[in-house]
Amino acid sequence: MSAYRDEDEDPRLHGIKTKIRVVPHFPKSGIMFQDITTLLLDPKAFKDTIDLFVERYKGKNINVVAGIEARGFIFGPPIALAIGAKFVPLRKPKKLPGKVISQEYILEYGRDCLEMHVGAVEAGERALVVDDLIATGGTLCAAMDLLERVGAEVVECACVIELPELKGRERLNGKPLYVLVEYLEV
Amino acid sequence: MSAYRDEDEDPRLHGIKTKIRVVPHFPKSGIMFQDITTLLLDPKAFKDTIDLFVERYKGKNINVVAGIEARGFIFGPPIALAIGAKFVPLRKPKKLPGKVISQEYILEYGRDCLEMHVGAVEAGERALVVDDLIATGGTLCAAMDLLERVGAEVVECACVIELPELKGRERLNGKPLYVLVEYLEV
Repeated sequence: MSAYRDEDEDPRLHGIKTKIRVVPHFPKSGIMFQDITTLLLDPKAFKDTIDLFVERYKGKNINVVAGIEARGFIFGPPIALAIGAKFVPLRKPKKLPGKVISQEYILEYGRDCLEMHVGAVEAGERALVVDDLIATGGTLCAAMDLLERVGAEVVECACVIELPELKGRERLNGKPLYVLVEYLEV
Repeated sequence: MSAYRDEDEDPRLHGIKTKIRVVPHFPKSGIMFQDITTLLLDPKAFKDTIDLFVERYKGKNINVVAGIEARGFIFGPPIALAIGAKFVPLRKPKKLPGKVISQEYILEYGRDCLEMHVGAVEAGERALVVDDLIATGGTLCAAMDLLERVGAEVVECACVIELPELKGRERLNGKPLYVLVEYLEV
């Protein structure tokens, strides 16, 4: 089951990988769900996760960290605080109270939508998009679209986990993607 | 509109208060919604918010920070990381992939429910409950019930904002509540 790559690159990565739990058949039959809540239960592994991102993005003039609801809200704010950037939540429809712009995206069955507050991000700002996992990449694309529609520059997308077999990286239109661990058996 | 209390206690509080936006009539007519997303856009005010909580809870042997979906996910993790506690997400139904315990609670119209992973918190652990806002206190009570059902001790509930007129504090069964700012006009 433990089919991650790059285990020897940084000694902290192994600890992070071992704390991610696979829950079979969630949310539906056949899906091997990558559960980061067990990572959050280990203060050292959670801190190592944030530290690895902060070491990568510190000093890169990133002034926006955009986190995708809901697990991107867990990883994004500690990164934003550490690098001195604002945190911008990208939420499901009708959750943000102010005026928003919306971006639909296509799921395996049906559509979903992300929203961002108007005025939260300004033209020319440099943004990092954060989520826990990239699967097909549809959510990250919608997030980038929102940021680029207001004139921000998306510097990179950062996720804890990538499922490479779903080829989400190829859908990011050349935008760089940084992940800590890969899970090869979907 | 700016009817906060205790503005002179800590110079950081004033900055925090001025960054919270009131959105009238959200999510429905008559409600003055306290929007913390504008606080998150100011890196200093967001950092001050987290620092004030960390200064209060550091060294108090708290080993669980439980954050309530979704805005408790934004404030809870940075506190957990700073004090070396685990972070436990308390989520809406069917969001957590593992085995859960559930706690229903009553809203003004209808019911809602919070869930916590079985095994995330152990008997005897000392927990802090974090959310952005306390209104009637129903959600915080459900969160405390979940933690106490597995034998944890709830040390305190911590919120950025309190709406004192809704008397949520009185519903907490004597558990201490710590808030940074109060909003007196609901």
